[in-house]
Amino acid sequence: MAAKLSTQVYKGSRDFYPEDMRLREWMFARISTVLESFGFEKIDSSLIEPIEVYLAKTSEEIVNQQIYSFIDRGDRKVAIRPEMTPTVARMVSGRLRELTKPVRWYSIPNLWRYERPGKGRLREHWQLNADILSARDEFMADLEIIQLAAELMFSFGANKNDFKIYISHRGILNNVLGNILKLPENQWANISRIIDKIEKISKDEFNTLLKNELLDDSQMNSLMNYLHTDLDFIQTQHEKIGESASYLLKLMQMMKEIGLSDVVVYRPSIVRGFDYYTGVVFEVFDTHEENRRSLFGGGRYNNLAGAFTNESVNAAGFGMGDVTFTEFLKLHNLLPDLKRKTQIYIAGFGNEIEIKNIFSLASRLRKQGFIVELSSGDAKIKKQFEEANAKRIPVVLLQGEDELKVNAIQIKLMESGEQSTVPLQDLESALRTILNC
Amino acid sequence: MAAKLSTQVYKGSRDFYPEDMRLREWMFARISTVLESFGFEKIDSSLIEPIEVYLAKTSEEIVNQQIYSFIDRGDRKVAIRPEMTPTVARMVSGRLRELTKPVRWYSIPNLWRYERPGKGRLREHWQLNADILSARDEFMADLEIIQLAAELMFSFGANKNDFKIYISHRGILNNVLGNILKLPENQWANISRIIDKIEKISKDEFNTLLKNELLDDSQMNSLMNYLHTDLDFIQTQHEKIGESASYLLKLMQMMKEIGLSDVVVYRPSIVRGFDYYTGVVFEVFDTHEENRRSLFGGGRYNNLAGAFTNESVNAAGFGMGDVTFTEFLKLHNLLPDLKRKTQIYIAGFGNEIEIKNIFSLASRLRKQGFIVELSSGDAKIKKQFEEANAKRIPVVLLQGEDELKVNAIQIKLMESGEQSTVPLQDLESALRTILNC
Repeated sequence: MAAKLSTQVYKGSRDFYPEDMRLREWMFARISTVLESFGFEKIDSSLIEPIEVYLAKTSEEIVNQQIYSFIDRGDRKVAIRPEMTPTVARMVSGRLRELTKPVRWYSIPNLWRYERPGKGRLREHWQLNADILSARDEFMADLEIIQLAAELMFSFGANKNDFKIYISHRGILNNVLGNILKLPENQWANISRIIDKIEKISKDEFNTLLKNELLDDSQMNSLMNYLHTDLDFIQTQHEKIGESASYLLKLMQMMKEIGLSDVVVYRPSIVRGFDYYTGVVFEVFDTHEENRRSLFGGGRYNNLAGAFTNESVNAAGFGMGDVTFTEFLKLHNLLPDLKRKTQIYIAGFGNEIEIKNIFSLASRLRKQGFIVELSSGDAKIKKQFEEANAKRIPVVLLQGEDELKVNAIQIKLMESGEQSTVPLQDLESALRTILNC
Repeated sequence: MAAKLSTQVYKGSRDFYPEDMRLREWMFARISTVLESFGFEKIDSSLIEPIEVYLAKTSEEIVNQQIYSFIDRGDRKVAIRPEMTPTVARMVSGRLRELTKPVRWYSIPNLWRYERPGKGRLREHWQLNADILSARDEFMADLEIIQLAAELMFSFGANKNDFKIYISHRGILNNVLGNILKLPENQWANISRIIDKIEKISKDEFNTLLKNELLDDSQMNSLMNYLHTDLDFIQTQHEKIGESASYLLKLMQMMKEIGLSDVVVYRPSIVRGFDYYTGVVFEVFDTHEENRRSLFGGGRYNNLAGAFTNESVNAAGFGMGDVTFTEFLKLHNLLPDLKRKTQIYIAGFGNEIEIKNIFSLASRLRKQGFIVELSSGDAKIKKQFEEANAKRIPVVLLQGEDELKVNAIQIKLMESGEQSTVPLQDLESALRTILNC
């Protein structure tokens, strides 16, 4: 006998058996409902892009260490998408003239990164991407994107104590680095990436990384001070940190006005890993003591389409991964118990006249909108009841010779065991009453 | 200015802009409704599988010339899935003991093959896969799978003249090749693959391919005769072609009994490209004179799980690609005109009090289930009406100072231009009447 292949799924990815898939479909449907209630339209694109699409703006860590790239049979270097934003930039650039602005797009693509699989981190995950592109008023778009992130959380049953949206502004950080720490612009990206790690690494590691960037003690102090400031600092240091300060203050004020002051909180250490952010940045954090981590985030990135077009495209958006989000829902007891959808099982004795009858009956019921599974052959009736039971199908239909003679059918309710016989022509109405549909 | 990257999507794949995506989502939702009405449950899995999963059973043409394979960063040879069936076999094998049989699974994965893009053929396509696994009665499973294929066609509005389901049986062909042509078993797969091409290549090419297999004139004649036989042949040659003949006759009889004799037709040249079929095979053909081609097909493959498990798993299923199917729907005028979903556009003048008002109003309406898009800032009102018009949003709301003072709001119907003012507290009921929802 030949050696058998492993039935394990490829490392870091997942098999979605029906119960897993029901959950995924439930989650994606709810996400779509919320996004569409804001007027966002769903898009998708190719799984594969030329590698150049990612070289411009995706972080070096991803491109050098994590991207799934290869040479195709036509000798083109290509990659499986590690993120969706460059594709969105490509698509919007390709139709910039025709599209009615602002463009509100969302997508839920699967993304691939070669990571060491761990809690909340897999190689394949699905990610909601929501973007407002080419808005007339960036402020209103920023407001809407953050409101959307909050509504998304609420729509899954999270309450205002379950999460916080920490918010900052790249412009403020850049001004602090340039005008207070007096660092040259070519160091800002590196320092920003280090700050982005502050919640994930120890204080010592953090300090070492900063020292490697040759920050002196005074600069270190200034930076640590800044990272622990609140909105007062921004108000008082206004002239050193420029117009991004007043922008953020106005945004925080408006968050209060539209009822989000309980969840939206200023936090200067919010940076976001990607280099392409240019303005407001935010991260949604779980507040549960076992899971104080970032669930997802986003912000404003106004230059991303620049790789594809000379026209300017302003943009704000966020990306939310399914793995991290599912863990959040699980921890907060917000996952539903989703049952198999089948309502009716038609049992049978396996002779040919009956095969004809049960196939025809199934067709008739399906046309009326019922979800009907057929017995798959001549097992003992007891075994068929066991099958219906194992599949948690609530109703079993059975037409023995006695019923057949008088054009009737037996209905058995699996939970109570209750049985009744109804005339065939009354079957649909009897089923609607039983199934409450 | 740096050279810009192309906005073209990777060759042979597609961008799905909102209008394309609406169509795709509509199609997939309808497919899901039909599949679920038969009790099929949706599954999915990893996009990437170890290459071994495909080496066993996928056709050599695909593995050698069309598969997207590469070495991952962990030095494993992997492939982007070119078909879903091996993954289904892997998944069912992995949980064979726990699963309640029969297993009815469907999936709509994206699949990748390095093909020369052309009509109905792309490198990335989505494919419905439907399978009944481990049925107690293979005959009933075959019947159900073919009934499902027919119901799927009907559910999209196709009528019985728009398509035919051509059906045959691998066992009959194997018996003809072995017992009538007296060919050794190791030639059967090659000859079958040639027969599978009969509709796609010229008669001369077809004959040349057969001659390359060293068929003599008498064998050629016998084969051509067989390929033009009807059910009578099977009835009369019964002993030479064995039990698969009576199986097919019984299946055709039952198709008649369940009302499918208009669409299900015996055709001996139906083979299917993959080597793994073991019994009934079928293809759904478009009957339109501009598109007489196979739309999709399937059949019985009882050995596929053999690569993963020693337990036997019988299986019947089919795969239907979205590209070919969309062309069918287009040609038969079965594609709907799907509009953008947004119902309400809230216009604004852009001052801060108003921003607060329109964000709050939008929230209130969304909570009531309305789909609401906000103006994105301080453009002239005329421009905002133009935006709503371009987006085909039927209703615009506007609250000027006059309305604000008396807690009222203006409703403008974009199609008729009709305007009215209603008290804010009556807004939802007015909108429900207007939008008929």
